[in-house]
Amino acid sequence: MRAEILAVGSELLTPLRSDTNALWITERLIEVGVEVGARTTVADDPSLLESAFRTALSRSDVVISTGGLGPTEDDLTREAAAAALGRSLRRDPVVMEALKARFARYLRQMAPNNEKQADVIEGASVLVNPRGSAPGLSVEDGDRIVVLLPGPPSEMKPMFEEQVLPLLRARTGGALLKTRVLKIASMSESDVDHTVAPLYQTFTNPRTTILSAPGQVELHLTASGASLAAVEERIESLASGIRGLLAGRVFSEDGQELPAVVGALLRDRRLSLAAAESCTGGLLAARLTSVPGSSAYFERGFVTYSNRAKVELLGIAPELIEAQGAVSEVVAAAMASGARHAAGADVGIGITGIAGPEGGTDDKPVGLVFLALDGVAGTRVRRAVFPGDRERIRHQATQAALEMLRRGLLGIAPL
Amino acid sequence: MRAEILAVGSELLTPLRSDTNALWITERLIEVGVEVGARTTVADDPSLLESAFRTALSRSDVVISTGGLGPTEDDLTREAAAAALGRSLRRDPVVMEALKARFARYLRQMAPNNEKQADVIEGASVLVNPRGSAPGLSVEDGDRIVVLLPGPPSEMKPMFEEQVLPLLRARTGGALLKTRVLKIASMSESDVDHTVAPLYQTFTNPRTTILSAPGQVELHLTASGASLAAVEERIESLASGIRGLLAGRVFSEDGQELPAVVGALLRDRRLSLAAAESCTGGLLAARLTSVPGSSAYFERGFVTYSNRAKVELLGIAPELIEAQGAVSEVVAAAMASGARHAAGADVGIGITGIAGPEGGTDDKPVGLVFLALDGVAGTRVRRAVFPGDRERIRHQATQAALEMLRRGLLGIAPL
Repeated sequence: MRAEILAVGSELLTPLRSDTNALWITERLIEVGVEVGARTTVADDPSLLESAFRTALSRSDVVISTGGLGPTEDDLTREAAAAALGRSLRRDPVVMEALKARFARYLRQMAPNNEKQADVIEGASVLVNPRGSAPGLSVEDGDRIVVLLPGPPSEMKPMFEEQVLPLLRARTGGALLKTRVLKIASMSESDVDHTVAPLYQTFTNPRTTILSAPGQVELHLTASGASLAAVEERIESLASGIRGLLAGRVFSEDGQELPAVVGALLRDRRLSLAAAESCTGGLLAARLTSVPGSSAYFERGFVTYSNRAKVELLGIAPELIEAQGAVSEVVAAAMASGARHAAGADVGIGITGIAGPEGGTDDKPVGLVFLALDGVAGTRVRRAVFPGDRERIRHQATQAALEMLRRGLLGIAPL
Repeated sequence: MRAEILAVGSELLTPLRSDTNALWITERLIEVGVEVGARTTVADDPSLLESAFRTALSRSDVVISTGGLGPTEDDLTREAAAAALGRSLRRDPVVMEALKARFARYLRQMAPNNEKQADVIEGASVLVNPRGSAPGLSVEDGDRIVVLLPGPPSEMKPMFEEQVLPLLRARTGGALLKTRVLKIASMSESDVDHTVAPLYQTFTNPRTTILSAPGQVELHLTASGASLAAVEERIESLASGIRGLLAGRVFSEDGQELPAVVGALLRDRRLSLAAAESCTGGLLAARLTSVPGSSAYFERGFVTYSNRAKVELLGIAPELIEAQGAVSEVVAAAMASGARHAAGADVGIGITGIAGPEGGTDDKPVGLVFLALDGVAGTRVRRAVFPGDRERIRHQATQAALEMLRRGLLGIAPL
């Protein structure tokens, strides 16, 4: 089965925006054994859009579009797909009711132009969209399937996984393909590869791909087999070897990111956490509290951006800041223990550094960050220098703090 | 003039590689007034590739391909373009000599399969490639131009700038294209469209595209003209009308996001800010401090995730929380004024709500958020219900808080 992906939207053809949906869909399709033959980004123009659907239909078994299902005049995907398929559109009363109910739920009046979101291609099935106003559509046309999905990733992704993948799986029927992702936060991509390549190169099934994500490295192990058990067994035989080689550095094998991994460890141990942040400005707290249920262990956060805040909220002696500077090992340690004591929490974290672009010196360059952990495994402090711009430096600093906490909680030696 | 870009190569359709050429070419084309109508990535398959060229030729004035000009069996771009144009290929003796000379220069033997790199489409001009073995081709076909370029960016980019852009500039006569983006944080996409469509529909130059980004709506106004001044004037004539219709809701026209816009207002007024956050867990502080130089106005943040933290850090009476609940109008207001006073800052913000997925009730559903502003424009409190998952709710809550602050600082009436 060959698939084609159409990303709809003039904005995706400007330098301002780029489409990330197509890549994500490509990965999901590979998992069910469907190959992508072409991927097109097309402007909000009726004739371009219709011709893109016609071309795709002429050469692919599966055509998936994202975007152009909104309520505005620019949203033309429904009309273009209907024209290319030679089918008509009808306004669906059930979809219309759902749309009205959605607007009512958020205390908003439905604008008249939203009504066209209830238009359904003749013979299509409606794909419900619990997270947005634009429903999707799937049309079986002979041996081909055409699927129209909304553009926002937060709406498109769950619709694809819950409603589109089962449709495709029913058609491909055959072999199973599964990927397990091993995540590592404390090594460079080349160091990981250098350590594990001699092992994974001896396997053809699973295949291994190594990818670098912001602040971490991922090993994707993809195996195929006749049953889920057989596939899992193949993956585990390689994964266990990699775990051994990387000695405690793999923090996740089930898709979870560091904030959730660390959160589960705190919850299991019934420990509460407080964080004091300077250069990361609340980003560590925001990441920790992005996890549902984090109120069970996250007590509070201090965004002590000014020196006065460090003194007043964390009880740090002004002389310490004056003598060593706010960006120093002793201040990081005092922030961690100050946060812990001021909050009456079990564990404290402190982060202070220079996120840039201004404020760097020869002694203390942009990217220099001190991280401290207090209340578990004694007191640990780490000095690191992170590359990249302000955003990357701040993200890496929170990754390093979370990894420090994870190692402390598990009793693994500090970095 | 409308252009279409074809990126050729099966590797570009896997998750491992992505095409960066198309975006770069798009930017260059915009500068000479050529708009990209579609962008396709296509596998190394003769029939897919020929149909991609046929489709592009049927709807675009300029077709530019990158990749597939190498010496291997997978390199099929020359053949596919010739077939789509209905022209033959001939082996060019001058190109062949240049190829041989290139190999000799690097003391290498030319393999027989390299010979096909000397194949030229009937009637085409050869684009020399000083940095690689694959020459490019340009074909004038009636009013259309087809350009074939090699895939490696280091070879493609100089060829495009030195040999392709002059060709295109000669055709467009030097018209310029420019886009201005107007951002709005406090209206839905359909409400914005409903309000401004009657105006922008009376303009053909600029054209207007409306799009919805997380927590905001963007209007892209794209105008063309003979000079930069003429283009700017055309954009401004529509933009000023839109500003009027949206009455203070446009927060940015220069690419800046809300944290930077609000930061500049605080800095200009020499006001300091403190934030108290519950459901957003530090995300507002993280966004505010993502702006370089934010230490000039951001004093500190309180991530008062627990009720105890609200009482101890912000001085909120426990009875108030008990009587009204932590998610309530009075607690939001007390957080804003508590943050302001505890920090000795000029302005305080408070956010409390239910980010979910758990914790919602009939009275207080997931997505309910109270926002408060204290110290500028008196005290303002707003109740909102945001759709989506935890991440979207938290992001929208910070957007609403920033917009509330922006309106307060500018003396615009609250929402």
